[in-house]
Amino acid sequence: MKKLNIAIIGCGFMGRTHSNAYRRVSNFFDLEYKPVLKAICDRNEEKAKGFANQWDYESVETDWKKMLERDDIDIIDICTPNNLHAEIAIAAAEAGKMIVCEKPLAMNAAQGQTMVDAVEKAGVANLVSYNYRRIPAVTLAKNLIDQGKLGKIYHYRANFLQDWTISTDLPQGGDGLWRLDVKESGSGVTGDLLAHCIDTAIWLNGPIKEVTAMTETFVKERQSVTSGKVEPVKIDDACAFLARFANGSLAVFESTRYARGHKALYTFEINGEHASIAWDLHDLHRLSWFDHRDEGITRGWRSIHVTDGEHPYMDKWWVPGLQIGYEHSFVHQVADFLEGLAKSTPVSPTFRDALETQKVCDAVLDSAKSGQWVKI
Amino acid sequence: MKKLNIAIIGCGFMGRTHSNAYRRVSNFFDLEYKPVLKAICDRNEEKAKGFANQWDYESVETDWKKMLERDDIDIIDICTPNNLHAEIAIAAAEAGKMIVCEKPLAMNAAQGQTMVDAVEKAGVANLVSYNYRRIPAVTLAKNLIDQGKLGKIYHYRANFLQDWTISTDLPQGGDGLWRLDVKESGSGVTGDLLAHCIDTAIWLNGPIKEVTAMTETFVKERQSVTSGKVEPVKIDDACAFLARFANGSLAVFESTRYARGHKALYTFEINGEHASIAWDLHDLHRLSWFDHRDEGITRGWRSIHVTDGEHPYMDKWWVPGLQIGYEHSFVHQVADFLEGLAKSTPVSPTFRDALETQKVCDAVLDSAKSGQWVKI
Amino acid sequence: MKKLNIAIIGCGFMGRTHSNAYRRVSNFFDLEYKPVLKAICDRNEEKAKGFANQWDYESVETDWKKMLERDDIDIIDICTPNNLHAEIAIAAAEAGKMIVCEKPLAMNAAQGQTMVDAVEKAGVANLVSYNYRRIPAVTLAKNLIDQGKLGKIYHYRANFLQDWTISTDLPQGGDGLWRLDVKESGSGVTGDLLAHCIDTAIWLNGPIKEVTAMTETFVKERQSVTSGKVEPVKIDDACAFLARFANGSLAVFESTRYARGHKALYTFEINGEHASIAWDLHDLHRLSWFDHRDEGITRGWRSIHVTDGEHPYMDKWWVPGLQIGYEHSFVHQVADFLEGLAKSTPVSPTFRDALETQKVCDAVLDSAKSGQWVKI
Amino acid sequence: MKKLNIAIIGCGFMGRTHSNAYRRVSNFFDLEYKPVLKAICDRNEEKAKGFANQWDYESVETDWKKMLERDDIDIIDICTPNNLHAEIAIAAAEAGKMIVCEKPLAMNAAQGQTMVDAVEKAGVANLVSYNYRRIPAVTLAKNLIDQGKLGKIYHYRANFLQDWTISTDLPQGGDGLWRLDVKESGSGVTGDLLAHCIDTAIWLNGPIKEVTAMTETFVKERQSVTSGKVEPVKIDDACAFLARFANGSLAVFESTRYARGHKALYTFEINGEHASIAWDLHDLHRLSWFDHRDEGITRGWRSIHVTDGEHPYMDKWWVPGLQIGYEHSFVHQVADFLEGLAKSTPVSPTFRDALETQKVCDAVLDSAKSGQWVKI
Repeated sequence: MKKLNIAIIGCGFMGRTHSNAYRRVSNFFDLEYKPVLKAICDRNEEKAKGFANQWDYESVETDWKKMLERDDIDIIDICTPNNLHAEIAIAAAEAGKMIVCEKPLAMNAAQGQTMVDAVEKAGVANLVSYNYRRIPAVTLAKNLIDQGKLGKIYHYRANFLQDWTISTDLPQGGDGLWRLDVKESGSGVTGDLLAHCIDTAIWLNGPIKEVTAMTETFVKERQSVTSGKVEPVKIDDACAFLARFANGSLAVFESTRYARGHKALYTFEINGEHASIAWDLHDLHRLSWFDHRDEGITRGWRSIHVTDGEHPYMDKWWVPGLQIGYEHSFVHQVADFLEGLAKSTPVSPTFRDALETQKVCDAVLDSAKSGQWVKI
Repeated sequence: MKKLNIAIIGCGFMGRTHSNAYRRVSNFFDLEYKPVLKAICDRNEEKAKGFANQWDYESVETDWKKMLERDDIDIIDICTPNNLHAEIAIAAAEAGKMIVCEKPLAMNAAQGQTMVDAVEKAGVANLVSYNYRRIPAVTLAKNLIDQGKLGKIYHYRANFLQDWTISTDLPQGGDGLWRLDVKESGSGVTGDLLAHCIDTAIWLNGPIKEVTAMTETFVKERQSVTSGKVEPVKIDDACAFLARFANGSLAVFESTRYARGHKALYTFEINGEHASIAWDLHDLHRLSWFDHRDEGITRGWRSIHVTDGEHPYMDKWWVPGLQIGYEHSFVHQVADFLEGLAKSTPVSPTFRDALETQKVCDAVLDSAKSGQWVKI
Repeated sequence: MKKLNIAIIGCGFMGRTHSNAYRRVSNFFDLEYKPVLKAICDRNEEKAKGFANQWDYESVETDWKKMLERDDIDIIDICTPNNLHAEIAIAAAEAGKMIVCEKPLAMNAAQGQTMVDAVEKAGVANLVSYNYRRIPAVTLAKNLIDQGKLGKIYHYRANFLQDWTISTDLPQGGDGLWRLDVKESGSGVTGDLLAHCIDTAIWLNGPIKEVTAMTETFVKERQSVTSGKVEPVKIDDACAFLARFANGSLAVFESTRYARGHKALYTFEINGEHASIAWDLHDLHRLSWFDHRDEGITRGWRSIHVTDGEHPYMDKWWVPGLQIGYEHSFVHQVADFLEGLAKSTPVSPTFRDALETQKVCDAVLDSAKSGQWVKI
Repeated sequence: MKKLNIAIIGCGFMGRTHSNAYRRVSNFFDLEYKPVLKAICDRNEEKAKGFANQWDYESVETDWKKMLERDDIDIIDICTPNNLHAEIAIAAAEAGKMIVCEKPLAMNAAQGQTMVDAVEKAGVANLVSYNYRRIPAVTLAKNLIDQGKLGKIYHYRANFLQDWTISTDLPQGGDGLWRLDVKESGSGVTGDLLAHCIDTAIWLNGPIKEVTAMTETFVKERQSVTSGKVEPVKIDDACAFLARFANGSLAVFESTRYARGHKALYTFEINGEHASIAWDLHDLHRLSWFDHRDEGITRGWRSIHVTDGEHPYMDKWWVPGLQIGYEHSFVHQVADFLEGLAKSTPVSPTFRDALETQKVCDAVLDSAKSGQWVKI
């Protein structure tokens, strides 16, 4: 096993999911490369040290630029707020590092394009962390579609519903709340949640051709954690859009942080001529499957408990019936990325793949402003 | 269409379900016979008159014996408390009337045997109202089993869970509460609820060979509606038993009126070598079906929405997706019974069929007393 | 009880649901008026006679105009294809008859306006059969909203998904298939299915302010049953739209007949500040309810089995746990309409109420053509 | 952080779950002790080496006795087939090691008693791995019961249903299949699956007083992996029993490996005077909760998505809505055990606690033979 030295930038929620993925992957997957948690970086030194201690990192940095200079770092993994992705990624590419970047790729498509240019020019391996693709039930959906089992596709619908920002007392900005500050996040639910829905949709159903959208900011101002003042909220609290795919199917997408009762309810459904698929993140280990070719009297939606050895990734874990969780999607992502490195094959979603999602997000936000259909 | 004159004895809950069934069957089923609501009988004249008015009965009686003397009555339908079934049924048979009797057939198997003897001697058509057989999803289960789709059967399990007698303030006896008075009911949940489970089980899975049981009376005394005094409660509030079927399968049955949160949750599940079936009364229009012969990666429990034209009875009702309810099981029962009359074919469950259930109930109650396995 | 003579025009699916409702209502509801099935009308005499026989109608007509001339008819109930609603309704109003009309009210809002004018000028009682309002779970949703339990509303979403027209072999026009012929139906899923969603939405959440929509016709031509030739399909097979309500909430609506696996899956969900509600037609006896005010550790979506005596309409039927079905919504509608007559109170949705839905349908179809947001 | 050196005996399925737990616990829990994977032992050296490599064990042994002699081992963790538990545990206790032992404690209660005596005499910390207690939803159930929210308990029911031994081609004995060989397992589903159900039941609902049981071996002979010959199968393939708890509640337990469609469906339900709880392992991150004290019109079963910070253990993991899986129960177990060590407090289930479960298992097997009720 060859060692691969990892440096993660950002000690927040995503820093944890990525650290865990690198730590665990070798216990479950047989891979040529073995990740080593070499360095962790956070502006806040105390936080970085605590994090390093908890995850057994070998070293700590407070300036991410230092990491790019180190010879003992192979992969830069960007877990910062969105507004820092581009600068770090471009510098890392120029430093010849491989790059894993949290989603969304960038603040907007134009910025994303510069990142794509940078990694492609540098010829470094790159990946954007749209982790939901690698939940076994979602990968199974992809396999079933690729086998042609659905026939012609008529409909796609996806929601990502949360309810954690309903309280007007919640401030914006700072640790954990940078998602509410447009300067750090670029947008609200569009980049944070719909980006996931769009990435999966393009992966499963091909390119999106055009959209019409609406957005809303329900709470118009919140205290800023950075300034201490009450400031206007500039992110979208909710966003919904209609879309047409290149394959002729119609789609409806919706996301909000004001859907009381839903914590992280990412759902999608796809209806084809012969069969349909549905999935949701609150029961991520199940896939709903309807096959019209089943005998009529016993035809019905099947609830597939995606825990068998023949299901994607599941031969690596426990025994049938025993479910895995959210964090495992990141382990699978790392496993696939490392396997791609071993084979010198790009692993999707690359920066270039993720740029497509960014373009749709831009079109959605444009349409919400103009009230017009916008082509991608 | 030939008219068939119906006389119902008892204006309680079952009087209503039966009246409704006779009233509606001709609107939905094409039958040789058309039922006419000729007479209703209740000891309480006012109640009988109100009921006759609501259901458009042509006449009212307060003494059921009068009904047997009338030439214009073809079918006696017994909807009284259990303790009156035998006397009425035997007299009706002697009077040459066809008989529909609410379940359970009798207070016990010995009494049931005298009823079977009477109807068979008289040669009159007879039926016991185990209505749940004729919920389309349950009939579909029967059809799937009869087609051999399950292979060898290993397990049967059934529950009937309610929670309406938890309050100690509830009295026993009288209208609506005779089920709590052992003199009128014969037993508690065993005859009231488990009798349904046993009837379905024998129908689906063949004879039960032996049982071991336990019963409990949680509330030891209640005010008697008839005497006005606090009296010991002599029914079983809860009953559970293990069983072995003649086909070698094992079974667990349980019923109670103390399962908080369940109103009328009759459930059954049957596990075969190749396939399994599950059903419950709270979503009676669905059948759960698992077929191991389905391809591995998409194998899962199917939820069959039993509302298609090719499902049992459903071509008579609405269109796919539109569910029917509880009361329709009685309409189907009447339709089948009338069809049997037209063809001179006995329709199950006859008194003789229902006697088998009664024998199991007796064995269950015996075993609960003795603590021993009891053979049927 | 005063008798009310009913004349139904149209022996199709809706003719059956309405006939059943009038036939049954007096068995379950205590009302001042008792409907009498006086006359049935269909262009096809044989069909009308068969129908009259099955439902015990007293007379048969083949020309609906005859019915308006008869003094023994109190209520004209219109169950024809949509293109006949206006002509019949206006004539019936002029003849001084009370009118029940199947939904949608008209072919478009302009036509609907003439109908509203006619009934209001004539001063006759009138009702449009948006029956889903009167499914007990849906009425319960309305009651909970009216009690203010949800607080400020953020989101509304509704789908009506079917899959019965996927086959290209299905012809258009004629009995049962007039819904596919734009000349008889006026539109496809918009008027047939979304009209239901819109009616419920306005009832529950108030006026819709503006919409942006897309429609699609997946199968471009079908054989015409009337002409025998292959003709272009001019209805919308699928329609989705975004909307803003007057109360500031956002909405997404979608309907299709190409959602494989869904027979008649009408669903809605409404998210408020404090609580959320969800419902679907495939399990119409349940209401999903989430209340954020519940204690945190046991907070969760509740599945309310809407079968208790304290639930809307349910004291009229059976006992807790025993579900009713689709057809009962029509019985409730008739019961409410008759009660309104007894009190001389208009019962919603009147023609005027239903016109609001028609206006939204028009706006949706306009927007789908123009690609613009359209105000109602 | 003080280091604690772990030695695991057995490289099978449980060797993996325990190794994972020790490896991960410090990344998520703040504990005084930090486990170190010091040594792994398996009779098969190659297997042990491969396992050590995958999990980064510092050393390998092929004779478990060597481990007891090593000073650098603090905890002996027994993941062998059941027939080795007693010998190893007693020797480990005599060597003064702390002991974690996979369930069931022993081959029978008599043997279990010798183990209890040994650890208590030696005064070493000890724990039996009934891991399901520490699934957050199950722990939440315990907390709700301990808060008295259910009131008087009437019913307990638990199932553990699998379907993996239906094929007659499956051999008995050897790696992964020792569970089918009575010499290594002691019993079939009773010790393997019902032991879990019984442990949880006693924990949640107190002591079991008496039982009556039945068992069945559906496949009477299978090829032995060890002897290569077809030999009689002596384990119980299925077992069901009725029970009475000391608190007066009634119970039904059932387990089988012949329930087609169920992979590892451990379910339990408990019905109290005021509230009921239900849970199942196939959706282990949810708890069903019914509270009769909720307002009548919105009363219903709640589905609690047990992923909030205020739910047991969940503040250590991700954010609300993101579920964890099966393996996390072992991490929690280790966390609690280490916390107990830090506080010098025994952590349940100790060997003594687990002996109670063993006694019930013995009584169940005795009753299945005798056909009599057996007191514990």
